[in-house]
Amino acid sequence: MQEAEWIDRYIKPLVTSKGAFELTDDVAVLTPYETTIVTMDTLVEAVHFLAADPLDTVGRKLLRVNISDIYAKGAAPGEALLSIAWPRHRDEVEFAALMAGIGDDLEAFNVSLIGGDLVTTDGPLILSLTLTGQIIGPAAIHRNGAKAGDGIFVTGQIGFGDVGLAAAQRGDCEDLAARYRVPVLAPLQAAAAVATHATASMDISDGLLLDAQRLCKASRVGLVLDLDCVPLAEPSDDLAIVIRQCTGGDDYQILMTAPADRDLTNFTRIGRVVEGDGLGLKWRGNTVDLPDILGFLH
Amino acid sequence: MQEAEWIDRYIKPLVTSKGAFELTDDVAVLTPYETTIVTMDTLVEAVHFLAADPLDTVGRKLLRVNISDIYAKGAAPGEALLSIAWPRHRDEVEFAALMAGIGDDLEAFNVSLIGGDLVTTDGPLILSLTLTGQIIGPAAIHRNGAKAGDGIFVTGQIGFGDVGLAAAQRGDCEDLAARYRVPVLAPLQAAAAVATHATASMDISDGLLLDAQRLCKASRVGLVLDLDCVPLAEPSDDLAIVIRQCTGGDDYQILMTAPADRDLTNFTRIGRVVEGDGLGLKWRGNTVDLPDILGFLH
Repeated sequence: MQEAEWIDRYIKPLVTSKGAFELTDDVAVLTPYETTIVTMDTLVEAVHFLAADPLDTVGRKLLRVNISDIYAKGAAPGEALLSIAWPRHRDEVEFAALMAGIGDDLEAFNVSLIGGDLVTTDGPLILSLTLTGQIIGPAAIHRNGAKAGDGIFVTGQIGFGDVGLAAAQRGDCEDLAARYRVPVLAPLQAAAAVATHATASMDISDGLLLDAQRLCKASRVGLVLDLDCVPLAEPSDDLAIVIRQCTGGDDYQILMTAPADRDLTNFTRIGRVVEGDGLGLKWRGNTVDLPDILGFLH
Repeated sequence: MQEAEWIDRYIKPLVTSKGAFELTDDVAVLTPYETTIVTMDTLVEAVHFLAADPLDTVGRKLLRVNISDIYAKGAAPGEALLSIAWPRHRDEVEFAALMAGIGDDLEAFNVSLIGGDLVTTDGPLILSLTLTGQIIGPAAIHRNGAKAGDGIFVTGQIGFGDVGLAAAQRGDCEDLAARYRVPVLAPLQAAAAVATHATASMDISDGLLLDAQRLCKASRVGLVLDLDCVPLAEPSDDLAIVIRQCTGGDDYQILMTAPADRDLTNFTRIGRVVEGDGLGLKWRGNTVDLPDILGFLH
């Protein structure tokens, strides 16, 4: 399946509501309420998490990948509906672990579970979460407001998805694997900063470079990222290792543009918005070619 | 998996919002909006539809099982988010068919698609829909308001899920199979009647008798159903055939209690609410024992 093409060809033509932004954003605005947004993300065993991952971590990841979308729009998470397609062969202890992980993060992120569906399947475990958010500022922040002269900022560190997945697959570094299994999100204050300062914002889920390129395109501007400034999970003198972390995906940090002079707690400035279009990279004072693959598509 | 037990044991304790009704209803009320409800239903290939069912019919069924929940609460469907876990081996023509079916029913039922997620899976096709609804009357109608003296009413006919499934499996009667694949819902006017007249209401998805028993329990009343009055897909002089249609599930009609003297377009009166608790059945003037299995649990 070529996901993006099929979405363009078969799904987007069905979308007519103004609040859906032609599916170009991470969330939709719920009609008739200008202040409530909604997102829905699905995780598939062996695609979005490892079949051997403890299910409490999978439950927490499910919450976080959705909360990440809400935060990135300058909103606070609200209410959730949960669909579980549960493999018949998995036992009750695992189900209890999944729900314990979900319960922990419902509480940690102040999300209220209000409904959903539980069904059985002969295939892999599949989890869908629908999550609402309440906008903190006057309106949700979209991908399309970046202006030449803005700075570009990220929360947290980039690359734990990549470095942590490798550790989980090797089984040799539990601390790093934990960062893959349960991404560490920016605090809610970062969502408030998005609401106050951002001209454009989105979450980084498929790789910093790919998501930065999407923000460029939506805003019809250029972006120059200074790779030396990107706070990496594993800082390195090897450009290939730097690029790998910036394209690996599963980071769930906020990528935001805002006036360049703002000094923003929880954010690191990693580049600037310029006239033109497309993404440029700098490293150690030199311009660097874009890699062929900018991110990870599930 | 024992779905109901696991929900009680692991999911209900996580649900604290008043609008979620401890998951005892088909929908939740979205905070802070008293007039918006939301539901989420998931369909799994080979569980909720046949693997050989044409995917345009599966798409339409997905919409209708969710719309049925919204109608039964006295609400009009609003906006939808769609999650598709797509089997790698299925081809683009099938995807186009799925989306065409969904598109047809989005239009037919005036539902706006605003978001969702598309992922691939090595397992069966799994579809989740989250659907909002706007309440038509002053408040959503729940399962718990039936009063002794009320009449009990249904829309449409009962049993097409059962009779149609058998036809689809045998492959001998396309008209009946079509009624299983794409349930025929009551018109929106029936939802308006729920809003105006109902004391309690729910949709019939797991079998008339099982769902009627749930309504009894939620309302803490008794119900006496007159099987002679139930509008059946396949009227019969054989009680076993009557019972089979009343327990087969997949009907997606509205089951509502309302003052007994109301003459309601789109509804047939099939019994009465009495003091006490539990479900009683009458057929041809005699009391009939409840069957051991009241409905179908997926």
